Amino acid sequence: MDLEKLHCLFYPKSIVIIGASSNPLKPGGQPLSALVAAGYSGEIFPINPRYEEINGLKCYPNLKSVGKEIDLAIIAVPAKYVPGMLQECGEAKVQTAVIFTSGFAETGEEGKKLQEEIVSVANKYNIRFAGPNCLGIVNAPAKVMANFAVSHNPEKVVKDNAYAFISQSGGFGTITYAEAQKQGLGAQILVSTGNEADLDFTTFLHYIVEHTDVKAVAAYLEGVKDGKSFVQAADKALTKGIPLILLKVGKHEIAAQAAKSHTGSMVGNDDIYQGFFHQKGIIRVNSVEEMLPLLSLFADKKLPRGNRIGILSSSGGGSVYLADLCTDAGLEVVKLSPNTCKQLEENLPSFITANNPVDLTSHAMMEEGILKNALKAVLEDPQVDLVMVYFNVAGEPTRHIIAQLEEAYRTADKPILCIGWSHNEEDHLLAQELMRQAGIPNTLQVEHGVKALATLASFAGHFRMRQASQESPGTTNGLVGKGKEYLAGFDRKALTEREAKQLLQLYNIPVVREEVARSAQEAVSLAEKIGYPVVLKILSPDILHKTEAGGVILNLHSAEEVTAAYDRIINNAKAFNPEAHLEGVLVAELIPPGRELILGIKADPTFGNCVLVGTGGVFVEVLRDFASGVPPISRLEAEAIIKRLKGYPMLEAFRNLGPADLESLVEAVLNLSRMALDLEGIISELEINPLIVGEKGQGVKAVDALITLN
Amino acid sequence: MDLEKLHCLFYPKSIVIIGASSNPLKPGGQPLSALVAAGYSGEIFPINPRYEEINGLKCYPNLKSVGKEIDLAIIAVPAKYVPGMLQECGEAKVQTAVIFTSGFAETGEEGKKLQEEIVSVANKYNIRFAGPNCLGIVNAPAKVMANFAVSHNPEKVVKDNAYAFISQSGGFGTITYAEAQKQGLGAQILVSTGNEADLDFTTFLHYIVEHTDVKAVAAYLEGVKDGKSFVQAADKALTKGIPLILLKVGKHEIAAQAAKSHTGSMVGNDDIYQGFFHQKGIIRVNSVEEMLPLLSLFADKKLPRGNRIGILSSSGGGSVYLADLCTDAGLEVVKLSPNTCKQLEENLPSFITANNPVDLTSHAMMEEGILKNALKAVLEDPQVDLVMVYFNVAGEPTRHIIAQLEEAYRTADKPILCIGWSHNEEDHLLAQELMRQAGIPNTLQVEHGVKALATLASFAGHFRMRQASQESPGTTNGLVGKGKEYLAGFDRKALTEREAKQLLQLYNIPVVREEVARSAQEAVSLAEKIGYPVVLKILSPDILHKTEAGGVILNLHSAEEVTAAYDRIINNAKAFNPEAHLEGVLVAELIPPGRELILGIKADPTFGNCVLVGTGGVFVEVLRDFASGVPPISRLEAEAIIKRLKGYPMLEAFRNLGPADLESLVEAVLNLSRMALDLEGIISELEINPLIVGEKGQGVKAVDALITLN
Repeated sequence: MDLEKLHCLFYPKSIVIIGASSNPLKPGGQPLSALVAAGYSGEIFPINPRYEEINGLKCYPNLKSVGKEIDLAIIAVPAKYVPGMLQECGEAKVQTAVIFTSGFAETGEEGKKLQEEIVSVANKYNIRFAGPNCLGIVNAPAKVMANFAVSHNPEKVVKDNAYAFISQSGGFGTITYAEAQKQGLGAQILVSTGNEADLDFTTFLHYIVEHTDVKAVAAYLEGVKDGKSFVQAADKALTKGIPLILLKVGKHEIAAQAAKSHTGSMVGNDDIYQGFFHQKGIIRVNSVEEMLPLLSLFADKKLPRGNRIGILSSSGGGSVYLADLCTDAGLEVVKLSPNTCKQLEENLPSFITANNPVDLTSHAMMEEGILKNALKAVLEDPQVDLVMVYFNVAGEPTRHIIAQLEEAYRTADKPILCIGWSHNEEDHLLAQELMRQAGIPNTLQVEHGVKALATLASFAGHFRMRQASQESPGTTNGLVGKGKEYLAGFDRKALTEREAKQLLQLYNIPVVREEVARSAQEAVSLAEKIGYPVVLKILSPDILHKTEAGGVILNLHSAEEVTAAYDRIINNAKAFNPEAHLEGVLVAELIPPGRELILGIKADPTFGNCVLVGTGGVFVEVLRDFASGVPPISRLEAEAIIKRLKGYPMLEAFRNLGPADLESLVEAVLNLSRMALDLEGIISELEINPLIVGEKGQGVKAVDALITLN
Repeated sequence: MDLEKLHCLFYPKSIVIIGASSNPLKPGGQPLSALVAAGYSGEIFPINPRYEEINGLKCYPNLKSVGKEIDLAIIAVPAKYVPGMLQECGEAKVQTAVIFTSGFAETGEEGKKLQEEIVSVANKYNIRFAGPNCLGIVNAPAKVMANFAVSHNPEKVVKDNAYAFISQSGGFGTITYAEAQKQGLGAQILVSTGNEADLDFTTFLHYIVEHTDVKAVAAYLEGVKDGKSFVQAADKALTKGIPLILLKVGKHEIAAQAAKSHTGSMVGNDDIYQGFFHQKGIIRVNSVEEMLPLLSLFADKKLPRGNRIGILSSSGGGSVYLADLCTDAGLEVVKLSPNTCKQLEENLPSFITANNPVDLTSHAMMEEGILKNALKAVLEDPQVDLVMVYFNVAGEPTRHIIAQLEEAYRTADKPILCIGWSHNEEDHLLAQELMRQAGIPNTLQVEHGVKALATLASFAGHFRMRQASQESPGTTNGLVGKGKEYLAGFDRKALTEREAKQLLQLYNIPVVREEVARSAQEAVSLAEKIGYPVVLKILSPDILHKTEAGGVILNLHSAEEVTAAYDRIINNAKAFNPEAHLEGVLVAELIPPGRELILGIKADPTFGNCVLVGTGGVFVEVLRDFASGVPPISRLEAEAIIKRLKGYPMLEAFRNLGPADLESLVEAVLNLSRMALDLEGIISELEINPLIVGEKGQGVKAVDALITLN
């Protein structure tokens, strides 16, 4: 990907505005006035044959007349003129463009053709462009205001709030950013991606993660066009410790694809996104309200070592309330260490009890030093990883209170979140502004604030795990190509159970011991080789659902039983489907009942072949209990996938069973991930159901498997 | 309960302020100035020997010198003087009091004694009082401002926002109310309950539900003192259609009691509260943010018929976002009816597609009539039960937009929630004020707003169910006293399995067929009477955990097997506990495997004997899958308890099983509820584990039961 070229978009030395206007409310007017107001230091060339001059800048009739090298063209002319203008851009060697104009693919067939036209012009001249049908971009440090509909003052951008916000909806992006700005959370970079005819969400993400110093990337996301590239961008972001905070919509789309397997039919595209978000520590938010406290917290860039929270509150009721919310969110309201308790008792008035939460009482907000000393003591407690302060502000004392917070916090290496409540808007806005200036993360949203702290702790965990892991997740362990070889020349859509298991074995996934018998006599001798009890199963490419066909008989203990079962199965199969080609009967070892899991592969339209893990039996049916990951899956990621299952506690020592053989299970997931990658585009679905997981040291075994091909 | 007397507290004709002060920031000063400012029309008598006059009112040296009948005394003197002052109140025939003063039970042993002293004085003179250690009460319609710390202007109370707010924390109550007021949500009644030495949360709740016209009661609740009275108050509120919106804290207390049974050990006091909240349609909120949109919605008092939502949005991205949030919250984003689509297409610009959500686009906010016509059409759609409007406001057009909303909404009988977003605080505050004036429910909290709509729909369902149900939940079906008779003279703590089952049968709860054998021979003849296969179980008051003792043998098919099993069980039991008194061996029918549930009773410190229902097997162990109810439980409530189980889908047609016999299961829950009531204070725990639920028509059967007594 030619990301270097995007420098011309984000740090242009010169900008032309095609369709420039003197009206700052018009798309061709707003960037012009905003660039001037912001103090953009490059050259600006308004282009409009109707004017000689706009806002004191010379206006050019066309691009050619500018006669200079141009990094960025802002295009704000009606749709039908856009291809022509882009052609002119190409001829004038313009590097990049932002196309505001709507009326392209979003409007139907004709618009789609027009869009194809501009793509082909852009390709011809190697112009990279944002849009069409977008609100443009802002890069505040460079004072590039190539945007309309967001009134944005780069002076208001606070270094400490330096996040990027990418939106696939212009309007909704504006709403979100307006809410953020009201809370003092100015962005460093804004991108409205529009129709993504050329530059798409993922490309912008790559650029921002690699080439800017943002502390977080937030986005409104409907879907990515290139899942594989998104995987790389997300991975890069995690490695650099840049959190991705995504409001991903479209959760409840009806799954477009029909699926044959159990899990396959339950797992939709959004589930795969969700699994991927877990895998890479991507933070999914459900609402703008949930997003904003995160932006405030991540601006501070202090990652906690764990999830043990210390709470200070000026209200006793508030203490209980916060302790509940923190525990709900997965934070540990920790017991303060004896030394901290001693410090609190020595330095603070006697009515303050040294417990967590520390109830400072309302008196403490008025008396010098109480807040500061308490906060210092709690921040220094080795038992505490992060701190929350809940206090009231009113009038002039607000400054004093926030000065105390600042003093205690300045040298701390632990994150803090402050929530100052007040009786009126003015007090609240004052407190917010003072905290912003002091670089103290804050919010008014108590519930989302607490959740944000928990998210911070969990992101820190993901980041550390990534730093600690030396493993390259891409390794295929010498398995590459084996499956393709096996399937070469294969002309059926579905594999037989036996074929499916042979394929699994090629990728080192253990299967039950079984062999094909072509007569009752052969079945008996195989049973005796394998050892009783055994299971007999019909083997036919034409019978996928064997149980329905009466093609499975379990728990056979003797030669007589095996002989009878063989004949019965053959008769049942013939009755079920007289046309079916019968390859024989599988004689398999009977695995004693154990923990049943389901493993699967599903081809997802965004991410390609994905790996699914589910708890078997009632759990998957009643609770849809599964988790997923996008290959390549690392060992730590595989472990995390398994731990996400609701039924996970059953894999620990449970009832009269010892702990399950997690090591072998993880190995199976890793091998499945390698298989999924190796057979990308070839397999459409795979389901191992059940996979029996033995106790520690006993391994796992695929008992049944179903594979369908593209 | 003498609720009539509370009229003197909420509608006093005369008020004395004991410890009156001219400083409006002092507890003795604020009510005085607030009463005057509010225009309280009764008589006010400040009492303070140090002043002749306060704020132009004659000040009295003591109560006696007032010489009039007094309805309410506000007491704001130091703790040590309170008993004496209360004594004076009694002598002067004061009816009720509000005691602000702190320094009582909340401070330790000495304060506790002082509190007991004031209780005994109050009892002597039949004075009902709030506090001590409280912030007092406000009753806005009567302009009674017997409160300090909340600056409250009764003129700001909007009839349409007429809710009561009761708080068990003074400080936190103030915070919550401050947040509500900032959003234009003034309360009708405020109560800070303090130490609840006399009047407690529940008594206030009873009074407010019975004697005022509030549209909702919100509360910060740590716990109720009298569970039974709370049950009645909640029931009354539901019958009257008054929603209770409770921020109940203390979720994560460590359970104080050790419990013997499976579910008993998993169910804490907060779980029982939670179950009760479900039972009576009580709305539990986790945060203040979650509470506020509910207050705005319930002010409107329009209950939806169902959960089908119509969404209008001025942003396309916002539409997708809202549709996701609504679906997550359990609302149905319904397909609009053809007639509505036709109307939308006819009356609206061509760029608006007639889908739900209706994407009005930003143009629609500017053009006359678009919003109004679209909202009217959607409100009139018979497919739609409730409506959400998401729009942007900026400057002057705000008035015009809200006028359109008002016009469309004025005659509608369906609830609506409006969310107007803006770039700045001023626009937002203007929009909020205009919507408040127009009586349009609104919020800025999108996520909590959507959740509030879902809660409204669910409350409406509860209310309708209550209206439709003629059944008196209290009926004990002629079972009263049977268990007491059976247990009379019983001196053990635990019942044997056989005794427990006999007790269950007295309350018409079916148990497996079983009889006691005292010899192997008798066991065989009983087995033949009952029919093979049978189960044999040791019967001894000294062996509670039979399986551990080797005291259970399943699946016996013949006389020989029964004989051998009998001897083995007796030997095992003797080896396990040579001292145990062996009553014999139970011979029981073997119930074929089916759906396993757990039923239980647990004595809760707040509510007394409660009923528990859990899904058996791994569900209860891994997911803590149980639901509870407080007796008396009605039929509809019992059904709802069962449906709340995560494992409920297994009771419907599932795999190869037909639907479970829900009718018999409900009957068993009802009988258990009757048993719990009848044996209140006698039983401490009961667990039926498992209760086998057959398919429809096959009934339920208790297979094993454990009962412990107080």
